[in-house]
Amino acid sequence: MSLLRPNVTSAAGYVPGEQPTDTSVIKLNTNENPYPPSPKVMEAIRAVTPEQLLRYPSPSGQSFREAAAKVHNLSPDYILPFNGGDELLSVAIRAAASEKDSVAFLEPSYSLYPVLTEMNGSKAIRLSYTIEERSPIADRQLPIEKVRPSQSAIPHWSLPDNIESTPAKILLIVNPNAPSGHLDPLDRLAHIAKNFPGLLVIDEAYVDFAPRGGDALSLVQQFSNILLLRTLSKGYSLAGLRFGYAIAQPSLLKQIEKVRDSYPVDALAIAAATAAISDQTYFNQTRQQVIAERTRLAAELKSLGFSLPDSHSNFLLATVPNHIAPGSPGGPPPSAKQLYESLKSRGILVRYWDLPRISDKIRITIGNPEQNNKLLVELKNLLASQ
Amino acid sequence: MSLLRPNVTSAAGYVPGEQPTDTSVIKLNTNENPYPPSPKVMEAIRAVTPEQLLRYPSPSGQSFREAAAKVHNLSPDYILPFNGGDELLSVAIRAAASEKDSVAFLEPSYSLYPVLTEMNGSKAIRLSYTIEERSPIADRQLPIEKVRPSQSAIPHWSLPDNIESTPAKILLIVNPNAPSGHLDPLDRLAHIAKNFPGLLVIDEAYVDFAPRGGDALSLVQQFSNILLLRTLSKGYSLAGLRFGYAIAQPSLLKQIEKVRDSYPVDALAIAAATAAISDQTYFNQTRQQVIAERTRLAAELKSLGFSLPDSHSNFLLATVPNHIAPGSPGGPPPSAKQLYESLKSRGILVRYWDLPRISDKIRITIGNPEQNNKLLVELKNLLASQ
Repeated sequence: MSLLRPNVTSAAGYVPGEQPTDTSVIKLNTNENPYPPSPKVMEAIRAVTPEQLLRYPSPSGQSFREAAAKVHNLSPDYILPFNGGDELLSVAIRAAASEKDSVAFLEPSYSLYPVLTEMNGSKAIRLSYTIEERSPIADRQLPIEKVRPSQSAIPHWSLPDNIESTPAKILLIVNPNAPSGHLDPLDRLAHIAKNFPGLLVIDEAYVDFAPRGGDALSLVQQFSNILLLRTLSKGYSLAGLRFGYAIAQPSLLKQIEKVRDSYPVDALAIAAATAAISDQTYFNQTRQQVIAERTRLAAELKSLGFSLPDSHSNFLLATVPNHIAPGSPGGPPPSAKQLYESLKSRGILVRYWDLPRISDKIRITIGNPEQNNKLLVELKNLLASQ
Repeated sequence: MSLLRPNVTSAAGYVPGEQPTDTSVIKLNTNENPYPPSPKVMEAIRAVTPEQLLRYPSPSGQSFREAAAKVHNLSPDYILPFNGGDELLSVAIRAAASEKDSVAFLEPSYSLYPVLTEMNGSKAIRLSYTIEERSPIADRQLPIEKVRPSQSAIPHWSLPDNIESTPAKILLIVNPNAPSGHLDPLDRLAHIAKNFPGLLVIDEAYVDFAPRGGDALSLVQQFSNILLLRTLSKGYSLAGLRFGYAIAQPSLLKQIEKVRDSYPVDALAIAAATAAISDQTYFNQTRQQVIAERTRLAAELKSLGFSLPDSHSNFLLATVPNHIAPGSPGGPPPSAKQLYESLKSRGILVRYWDLPRISDKIRITIGNPEQNNKLLVELKNLLASQ
């Protein structure tokens, strides 16, 4: 199709995680929150009038800006709403990088980063890293590429020492990391912000499940090149709403706003998001429930022989056991891909990627206790049946 | 701000029409529909469950695709939803034009076109045209630039004869035209589609107010380079919802989809938009009401001395009288800018641009009978008081 740009026609495009229409499926594949949104969200939606729908919404999503500013103890001009965190990522890349420029991101990481880079016609700089300490019982080599051994303070990811000379206009870091769940400390992020000369996007999609103070909010006042990404999809149980927001210095947001859609968030989304972020009591309840289940599920998975790094997000990246416990019957253990497929056939969706360094792992979203129990029962059956 | 691209930092950005928070203002400035959306829209919104909100929405907005396909008598893969028509415009430009390429559009026209072109780093090709026949009583020259007199079959706009040699990758035509309201005939659009070698976006944001059969739907099967834009903001009274969609051949939409956000429309918007487009009976009622008011308002404005081209949209572009009726008292008539400001001070917003060729005009959105009557009363007062 010569009508369109070659970087578009040659691209594979982004493949979202499976979204089955069958609601009986236990969905532990796309990091949705298992708990419903605050009841105040539903009230706010039902209070929207026909008159609000026939008029254009607030271009700035003003009520949300004010509510989020209150929660973060900032002035509203530090907040800018987007139609999901994904729109923010797309806009940030387009604002910072031309076709001649490069976009840097960790790999493996959120698989949308390379897609957006390709759509922008920019060059990708892939910062490879390793995810976990090699298990002493592992009998095969992890393909650890391009990472110097001294840097693989694992499950830590490692940037090149000379980050200041990375020829990228924009660097995308997801923290807590995906898919490992690891949380990078603030002093490390501050070091990068100080030394990296371009725009530093810290994608905090999962930060609601990290310890208090683990987010980079305190760095925003200090560094004019930091753009924080937040979303209501995970911590606020609103993946269906498409609502994300940026936190950054107002002078940066004023520029970013020009690249954004003029009315990116609709009247219903503004009302719902404002209600959600204003109900911090409810937010903290579900947050604690997810964290408690994460602790329990991690311990159970370890007892089944999975190895997994500590997670500060709402998912666990579990390396499938490649050994059989002494005395167990049967043949070779199932591969990660086999486990994913077997679980799917039993109505449980987890995420699997046939990609270097993670093809021996499955990513499991933290469900509610009932969902997690069903998963554990099936995993036990699958591992025992070998 | 050297962090960002120079085409971003140097840009003025798009300025949306005024959106006052005071709901007592009579808003005739941004082409919203004065009638509320279908009651079925409100029902559909209230039927959305917390479970739908906590999960990601359908990436393709499948229920809407199917409902729209039924209305247009097409298969669902001819339909692709967007977060408002504006997202579609942005995506189309990014899909077709690199920084080395040019984007062509009419001028004056939708003022977002040049902004999106600038944000994409592309070159703009502005196809100037004149809006209306010069009134025989006009005492000043309209700045008709770059339009050959033989082509200004007015209020018709005119493309260069050699459209096939326009060095643009994409051509944006709004039809019915904005700001004139003129409807271009299908054979003209077919001629352009046939001869223009790039992507032809026909922005049909206002086509719901044109005569039946005036839209370019019938050309889509014939031309693989046509991308039709539709929106629910105008004809379906849902400007607050941000919902637009593309109609084009599936092979083109499959490419365009890669550049679009992965989940551009949220669960509430999909439910509301599906309900809106499925209620064609209600749609036709409000459509007829707007058209009837347009006829009445145009006649009344003409009797007040305004000159205006026939409109097939939900607004009127009125050239302010620059003469005083014989026997009238007072000084010189108010300018378009003065009228705009005086109306605003009386709680009525219309649109005014201080731009070449339209600075002697105001654009008036068709309101409901009560709103239009208030406008007419104020205009009579303002013109009589001179």
